[in-house]
Amino acid sequence: MRQRNKPWADDFIAEHADLIIPAPEKHRGKWKEIFGNDHPIHLEIGTGKGQFIAGMAEQHPDINFIGMELAKSVIVTAAEKVLAKEVPNVILLNNNAKDLRDFFAENEISGIYLNFSDPWPKSRHEKRRLTYRTFLEQYEDILIEGGTLVQKTDNRGLFEYSLVSYNQYGMLLEDVSLDLHVNEDPMNVKTEYEKKFSAKGQPIYRCQVSFQS
Amino acid sequence: MRQRNKPWADDFIAEHADLIIPAPEKHRGKWKEIFGNDHPIHLEIGTGKGQFIAGMAEQHPDINFIGMELAKSVIVTAAEKVLAKEVPNVILLNNNAKDLRDFFAENEISGIYLNFSDPWPKSRHEKRRLTYRTFLEQYEDILIEGGTLVQKTDNRGLFEYSLVSYNQYGMLLEDVSLDLHVNEDPMNVKTEYEKKFSAKGQPIYRCQVSFQS
Repeated sequence: MRQRNKPWADDFIAEHADLIIPAPEKHRGKWKEIFGNDHPIHLEIGTGKGQFIAGMAEQHPDINFIGMELAKSVIVTAAEKVLAKEVPNVILLNNNAKDLRDFFAENEISGIYLNFSDPWPKSRHEKRRLTYRTFLEQYEDILIEGGTLVQKTDNRGLFEYSLVSYNQYGMLLEDVSLDLHVNEDPMNVKTEYEKKFSAKGQPIYRCQVSFQS
Repeated sequence: MRQRNKPWADDFIAEHADLIIPAPEKHRGKWKEIFGNDHPIHLEIGTGKGQFIAGMAEQHPDINFIGMELAKSVIVTAAEKVLAKEVPNVILLNNNAKDLRDFFAENEISGIYLNFSDPWPKSRHEKRRLTYRTFLEQYEDILIEGGTLVQKTDNRGLFEYSLVSYNQYGMLLEDVSLDLHVNEDPMNVKTEYEKKFSAKGQPIYRCQVSFQS
């Protein structure tokens, strides 16, 4: 996933402050002003090279998308994809998802995507997994009632862990697929990872969950 | 799974009334009298040819096992396996699991196994799946508090369905494995199906769930 460091990445990010928004805490509760409309906002945590978010934005012009990606050299590629598609409904954040409540107000987000997140397989790193309960608490706080979380991964261990974590947190499992591409949904926008692993014949796991009121 | 009809099956069943117990409704609430001890009772629904229950009985002499199997020609094979192993802690029932509450009292069962159950893939047959909510209601009634349900299957569709069904019923997902034999547990007793499908490299799914008080 990681690309070689791009020395021009800092400059590129500074020059595209309308796409890669600096200081997101300033916009907490006011993201609709940035988008200039009242459309629902969906958040992808770990946007990577941007294939998913750029494709989704194109497919769903009535949804606004925010992509978070910590790696500078990677978010630049995502930004280039968004610019190439000329989609107005995407912004990117070059920030850590440490506490999403710093960036988003209660009920500000309508959907969350976790695509091929880092599995952190060692037990001592459990708290870093994006489906650990402290993250679920954050998602619950920023999501509207009925908002959904959609996870895709090729990592069996992470998916097993996540199913248990969602359930034990009291979340509602709305849908689960243990081999997403057997019955390919033409509306499924693939990430870079997904294309690669799926081509190798490895199963892609997907689930959709929500918080119960 | 189904074997050719064995004309001698009826005779065999009648001759082994101490192993394949007739009229189980008569023993409702009193199964410990049949076993002659107070050990916990585990129930396998759909015992098939008996590899699992005979192996489990041998491995766990302090647990009593009841295996239900509707097909006469199949339960005979299971009975022969139990007899060959000379395990005293198994009985079999040649009955349908239509309503388990006819056969078992509240809190009479400590564990339930669903091994490679019929997936009933068509939507109109959903109610026949052993993880449909009307079956979960029965399991909840007959299980002790803290009793677990363990399911194994190679059928992806049934497993996806079951995970959602358990969750939406409010059950607790204690453990899930999406490829049981990758990290083989030497204590895992395999069914006939499991051996066959696992040898082909197909993943075996397993989960352990319980009812929340």
